[in-house]
Amino acid sequence: MSVLNNVNSLKSAIKKANINAVILLGTDPHLSEYIPDHWQVIKWLSGFTGSYAKMVVSQDKALLWTDSRYFIQAEDQLKNSGIILMRDRQIDSISIENWLINELNSGDVVALDGLTISALEYSQLKTNFAANGMSLIEKEGLVDSIWSNRPLVQNSKIYSYPASFSGQNRIEKLKTIRQLLTSRGAEATLISALDELAWTFNLRGEMHNFSPLFAGYGYVDQKKAILFASEGQISESLIHELATDGIEVVAYEELIAYLSGHIPKSIYLDSSRINSKLMNVFLDDSAVIEGGSLIAKLKSIKNKIEISGMKAAHRRDGVAMVNFLYWLDRSLGKEKMTEISIAESLNKFRSQQIRYKGESFSSIVGFGPHGAIVHYNATQDTDVEICKNGILLIDSGGHYWDGTTDITRTIAIGKVTAKQKKDFTLVLKGMINLANALFPFGSKGHSLDILARNSLWQNKLNYGHGTGHGVGHYLSVHEGPMSIRTEINNEPLCVGQILSNEPGLYREGEYGIRIENILLCKSAGENLGISFNSFETLTLCPIDRRLINKSLLNSVELKWINLYHKKVYQTLNSHLNPSVSRWLKSQCNPL
Amino acid sequence: MSVLNNVNSLKSAIKKANINAVILLGTDPHLSEYIPDHWQVIKWLSGFTGSYAKMVVSQDKALLWTDSRYFIQAEDQLKNSGIILMRDRQIDSISIENWLINELNSGDVVALDGLTISALEYSQLKTNFAANGMSLIEKEGLVDSIWSNRPLVQNSKIYSYPASFSGQNRIEKLKTIRQLLTSRGAEATLISALDELAWTFNLRGEMHNFSPLFAGYGYVDQKKAILFASEGQISESLIHELATDGIEVVAYEELIAYLSGHIPKSIYLDSSRINSKLMNVFLDDSAVIEGGSLIAKLKSIKNKIEISGMKAAHRRDGVAMVNFLYWLDRSLGKEKMTEISIAESLNKFRSQQIRYKGESFSSIVGFGPHGAIVHYNATQDTDVEICKNGILLIDSGGHYWDGTTDITRTIAIGKVTAKQKKDFTLVLKGMINLANALFPFGSKGHSLDILARNSLWQNKLNYGHGTGHGVGHYLSVHEGPMSIRTEINNEPLCVGQILSNEPGLYREGEYGIRIENILLCKSAGENLGISFNSFETLTLCPIDRRLINKSLLNSVELKWINLYHKKVYQTLNSHLNPSVSRWLKSQCNPL
Repeated sequence: MSVLNNVNSLKSAIKKANINAVILLGTDPHLSEYIPDHWQVIKWLSGFTGSYAKMVVSQDKALLWTDSRYFIQAEDQLKNSGIILMRDRQIDSISIENWLINELNSGDVVALDGLTISALEYSQLKTNFAANGMSLIEKEGLVDSIWSNRPLVQNSKIYSYPASFSGQNRIEKLKTIRQLLTSRGAEATLISALDELAWTFNLRGEMHNFSPLFAGYGYVDQKKAILFASEGQISESLIHELATDGIEVVAYEELIAYLSGHIPKSIYLDSSRINSKLMNVFLDDSAVIEGGSLIAKLKSIKNKIEISGMKAAHRRDGVAMVNFLYWLDRSLGKEKMTEISIAESLNKFRSQQIRYKGESFSSIVGFGPHGAIVHYNATQDTDVEICKNGILLIDSGGHYWDGTTDITRTIAIGKVTAKQKKDFTLVLKGMINLANALFPFGSKGHSLDILARNSLWQNKLNYGHGTGHGVGHYLSVHEGPMSIRTEINNEPLCVGQILSNEPGLYREGEYGIRIENILLCKSAGENLGISFNSFETLTLCPIDRRLINKSLLNSVELKWINLYHKKVYQTLNSHLNPSVSRWLKSQCNPL
Repeated sequence: MSVLNNVNSLKSAIKKANINAVILLGTDPHLSEYIPDHWQVIKWLSGFTGSYAKMVVSQDKALLWTDSRYFIQAEDQLKNSGIILMRDRQIDSISIENWLINELNSGDVVALDGLTISALEYSQLKTNFAANGMSLIEKEGLVDSIWSNRPLVQNSKIYSYPASFSGQNRIEKLKTIRQLLTSRGAEATLISALDELAWTFNLRGEMHNFSPLFAGYGYVDQKKAILFASEGQISESLIHELATDGIEVVAYEELIAYLSGHIPKSIYLDSSRINSKLMNVFLDDSAVIEGGSLIAKLKSIKNKIEISGMKAAHRRDGVAMVNFLYWLDRSLGKEKMTEISIAESLNKFRSQQIRYKGESFSSIVGFGPHGAIVHYNATQDTDVEICKNGILLIDSGGHYWDGTTDITRTIAIGKVTAKQKKDFTLVLKGMINLANALFPFGSKGHSLDILARNSLWQNKLNYGHGTGHGVGHYLSVHEGPMSIRTEINNEPLCVGQILSNEPGLYREGEYGIRIENILLCKSAGENLGISFNSFETLTLCPIDRRLINKSLLNSVELKWINLYHKKVYQTLNSHLNPSVSRWLKSQCNPL
């Protein structure tokens, strides 16, 4: 069935159900970052494949919202579909909410699948529609009857993740969670986010290409701990292992029925991380205590073993990166390479490292103007050969059994211009100034963000993305609750958290620059009664000296880069073969 | 009647009224910063004279909350009063709310005067008490029957402030306000904050020593504009002048009666700036549209004439400061000076300037350890002589007919130590880095705050106060809605706003350092489609070079200080007599 037919069928189904419009938010019941095929409703309906898309289908119109990363792609993929492209996240963007309020009339009904919207968003939308006389209803299965070959939910195997890597066994984790619940006056909590679930029960899966997660839910109260997982996902021996730790396994499909029969008096929920349908289970009969996810916070603070695993993973990743960069340096102009082939080569170098499990996200390799597209993913249509002069941006990362990495390096290909060197050095200065931060206990990421931007701002330049995201420990490469961005985030930066440090600069049609290292937040001791924290950079990989204009660095920055390169060489040297080691030494000499 | 009797009488009055406790928040119906005598209930009840104090009196206890600035003073002034000192704003502080929730029982009743609490605070308190089974009621006049000689409300004269200074006449201002009300869907607004009232109607008064304000309210809808003021405050000719501009005058005392008879369909109110009793007038019959004060924002963005007035005032203030500093330099060791006598001298030097109206706040002159007390106000008991070696902190400001100033200089007396120079230079670096800020349109003060702190943080030092407050134009020396502080403030910094830049460092028992200049936010032009803003420093006064360790300044900072001193000399030189001019030149030579 063609896209056009899909949309028309949905329009008819809506009309039949006396609904004026349906909202499709392009997520799954766990509000995941990577969405399994079963939940790729928008791709099926529109043919659009970008990672950010939301749709509205009314009885006579279909519209798709995406952001500037995908405008060109969306124009192309939506051609002849009759679907109107809505440019989101622009100054003059119209939100789905406002579009519907303008388009529909008082008394009209908007539907969405309560499984694919957070309880928080749902209640905000409902309130705002109500203020305009419209109603919002939850309606599942609208596409089921139309989507004939809808992929089944893939039930990936679940495996045990040993405490020798996670650093804390299940019993200890459950004890901590129960203590926190008591402190918040709650009897129970429901775990819906898949990385929180994997963390809590020391389990991993193979649901996605880029995250070792599995579909499931968790329920923890003062006595019980339940893992909801589908039959066939979990072996008898693992069920036994979990039982030994006091964890019962119940079928995934029975979640709502089970909860309805075991409603706790009070439940702690993060309404931004639980879907609306699940929230509804509790709203009538439980006291819902809302707050930021307790488990997200626990998970973000790495224990000693997780930290040492992350450090080991970054050492191995550094070896892979250096071997790759050496190969790139020696092979340029000798063998044909393209953005796609480079990404494949890099993955091969990572695969040579022990404990490597795969890429932590789809590598971004952008040459020249492609580097200026922040989330560029080379396709057969866009792929270009790396040759002549230009700047090559490579953002990649690996999952290792003991940790996860995320690194961006920007590489000079051929000759570089003074402008490119100045731009690169301004980004580098920002990266260094954030790495050098020393800040009082309790500081928030939004307070530190300017450290990475100030050198750019001083030259009336900026970048349009955040500076730092949390990094999971063999979990999602993006995690919260803390971040380093201009936008307000009230979660303080805590000792043990691991974040990226990735300022950039993008000149549309010319080139993109980003330098990304991973930071560990650690204690820097006390002075006059105030505790201070600082960062340790975990990433070990040289920064392209051909792109640095040394005269723009002050003495503190120069010292940082020389010490950093010294540490990179000293740490990686013994793991490299002699020719690579010699090459690395030349890259790490003092500036 | 003694303090002890006052408290006991209040306890009896509470018991009689079947109230379990009363909260006294120490403000006036306009929620002002400086409180007229009539509203100094806490001073009367407790004998405590600090500027920050809140009290709770229950049937058997009396407690007073104040912060660390006043702990020593409060211990002294509350001796033998039976009043318990509660240390506020400490990590382990107990709030009034929590103290009452712990102390009282379900069913108990807490009262306060609805005139002296913001509607926002009142509703939060009411909700939290209700969650604990307690009720909060508004009750006026509890102290009236006890406070026999309560000072009357002083009705200061109101005078017209010409548009040649304010830069915009009343008709234009009312037009702008009405347009904003329309854009917010509101018919009317009520003006309660006294600086907003004075700004809106281009009026000033003499209610306080330190702000040219007067007691009153304003009401503006699409047709009417009303000034509520007491009889005797306002002359016949001014009433006539206002009438010409479409402004009616109604008696202050008739406010609530008048409003009750003229309830608008919808009213725009800032619930953090209007007292609870006034909010209640509207809650039943008007649609209350809540939001940040429209007038506070308008007022903060100075027009061209206000800016040129502020610049002229800062030039005159600079002349006064330089004459004062020259006198101080020449007279030290020759005539006896104390903290109090220095403050008086400084005021005399300001008085020599044209258009000078008086101090914009009570000067802070703190020598040695007194400088470490952030809001130190020398009294006859604490006053010390300035002699031998030490650091002298002077924070002062003036109101001029065309603008308001606020400046802090820290002066070396005798020999300075290397530690003092390092501390001073770190504070100076912060001040310079904020002055040098260049930031995208829409940036918030909390994003910039770290610029002023980073040099201190890098040495594990910090200061416990905000970095920058708005400064009114011949109004209050402290104004919002924007600020530069660590705490979140969602109001962006806008072109035309004027803020202080005042990092500091306080070593308890040793000395305090603060350097404060006033900044004007201005446009820095556009690049790649993004508008940037920057600051211009308005304050003109040398920074004590004896306290600067030049080796700690980087080239950007060194350039700033030399250019700043050059500008100070060039601007002030022609207004000084030759000997002062020669002295200033020596202070302004390049480092």
